[in-house]
Amino acid sequence: MAGEFPARRACFIVSMLSLLSALPAPAAHAQAIRSTASVPQEGDWRTIADDQLLVMRLSGNRTIIIRLAPDYAPEHVANIRAMALAHWWDGQAINRVQDNWVVQWGDAAKRPLPASVKPYPAAEYDFAAMPIVQRLPKADAYSAFAGISADGWPMASDGAKSWIAHCYATVGVGREDAPDTGSGAELFMPLGGSARRLDRNYTVIGRVIEGAPYLSALPRSLGKWGFYDNPADFTPIETIRLASDMPESERPRFQYRAADNARFAALIAEKLHPRPPMVALGGMDVCDVPLEVRRLP
Amino acid sequence: MAGEFPARRACFIVSMLSLLSALPAPAAHAQAIRSTASVPQEGDWRTIADDQLLVMRLSGNRTIIIRLAPDYAPEHVANIRAMALAHWWDGQAINRVQDNWVVQWGDAAKRPLPASVKPYPAAEYDFAAMPIVQRLPKADAYSAFAGISADGWPMASDGAKSWIAHCYATVGVGREDAPDTGSGAELFMPLGGSARRLDRNYTVIGRVIEGAPYLSALPRSLGKWGFYDNPADFTPIETIRLASDMPESERPRFQYRAADNARFAALIAEKLHPRPPMVALGGMDVCDVPLEVRRLP
Repeated sequence: MAGEFPARRACFIVSMLSLLSALPAPAAHAQAIRSTASVPQEGDWRTIADDQLLVMRLSGNRTIIIRLAPDYAPEHVANIRAMALAHWWDGQAINRVQDNWVVQWGDAAKRPLPASVKPYPAAEYDFAAMPIVQRLPKADAYSAFAGISADGWPMASDGAKSWIAHCYATVGVGREDAPDTGSGAELFMPLGGSARRLDRNYTVIGRVIEGAPYLSALPRSLGKWGFYDNPADFTPIETIRLASDMPESERPRFQYRAADNARFAALIAEKLHPRPPMVALGGMDVCDVPLEVRRLP
Repeated sequence: MAGEFPARRACFIVSMLSLLSALPAPAAHAQAIRSTASVPQEGDWRTIADDQLLVMRLSGNRTIIIRLAPDYAPEHVANIRAMALAHWWDGQAINRVQDNWVVQWGDAAKRPLPASVKPYPAAEYDFAAMPIVQRLPKADAYSAFAGISADGWPMASDGAKSWIAHCYATVGVGREDAPDTGSGAELFMPLGGSARRLDRNYTVIGRVIEGAPYLSALPRSLGKWGFYDNPADFTPIETIRLASDMPESERPRFQYRAADNARFAALIAEKLHPRPPMVALGGMDVCDVPLEVRRLP
């Protein structure tokens, strides 16, 4: 490989694919389109309420922040808020890391649930609302169409019902056999695309918006179902808190990028039409649409 | 959550999805179908030639085994064999782990390539052959249709050309700007589904068939493009060898499960029709079809 830094240059293109795609046009023009059409305006950033942020702390100052989805899974989110307010997860653990599947945490200590938690909330696997505002041009294998909701969630639909897709970094509810649904005590984050096959069969309650690598890089277990056979391998959870329950000075503050605007449409168009000689593929997976957030001071 | 071991039971269903699905039928019958129709016959297992197995050793007795794809990327595989035979990778390193994207290794030391290596082999991004024998019922966002080749590779097609899909655990060639293609010195493994957007733009040379978790669980870098800023964070490669270049007593021996048979079709059918009350989704992603291998003594 030629070039002064071939290793870095070799990766440059891989990385640029995710960043430097543009509407098909001469390169200079494409750059101009890219730099204006898809840049969010200030009003595209919308604040996430304090009671929609769940803050999980692991040892070693590892913090994972989850945006909750109360509009799509109200009963489960109510349970999760109750457990967080009761500090019920403190001292629980990450007890499962199954390669190319999920990392899971929660009820390792088998504690009784707080009285305010419903052990069997309603299944919230899909819903009649149709919140997709940015529809992608090509379907995927798990839905009739897919796209992004105004409030920045990756969604799929069969045309009648819709649901949050089990993308990397979404957070789902572990559960027992149907028709029961889990309480929310046990949560999982997909590690790859394979979890899409859980769509419409599991409740998605949110999405990790910061710190996902602290979960994705944990050692895989070779035990049954990916559970660690030895509790010494568990990763202890120090605390899980609702941001609204934290001292104001410690609360993380986040905004998400809303999708109900032309800038977001341009962002998708740029991804769909990479700059030649890159070959366009006709579509992109809903889990590959960048869902940006930003931290406020 | 009820049950004596709710945490384990909660995960049971998540895991069972991948293992205990069946054709729609009364449960007892479904079990019977599953236990016979999709079980491979002895002849479905086919031996992978010694010169199609690449053995990468990291410290701590971590071994990663890659099945090469010379039928689909002959020039790149020729290069890779030449580099392995020259022991060219020994002492190189894994220098990039970018979350939800790729882990990459190879040319960290910027050594001159062996004389037998073509610095610029032909692009082998796609090919005119149509090797898919098990076609999946629903397209994905990146192709017109997808499926599995007789020799067990995950493939996608636009109807005219086909290519190996950038699924988790496939191995691609890092490269410089098009129309040049990489030599094969620098290789990457996708960590999730996002790498599908590299289809038809990068050469796939193989697939990790053992040890993928040693790559997927490496600490993520927050450096630019996911490269480690500090070489001290690199994971050194002890050796990379072709199995055919190893002493016979040390050679790993593997067989893959061929897909050109009714047992494989039944496997896909079972995945597409999970046992009620699980909701079927109409399709499955090509990257979610299990591509089994087995180790021979």
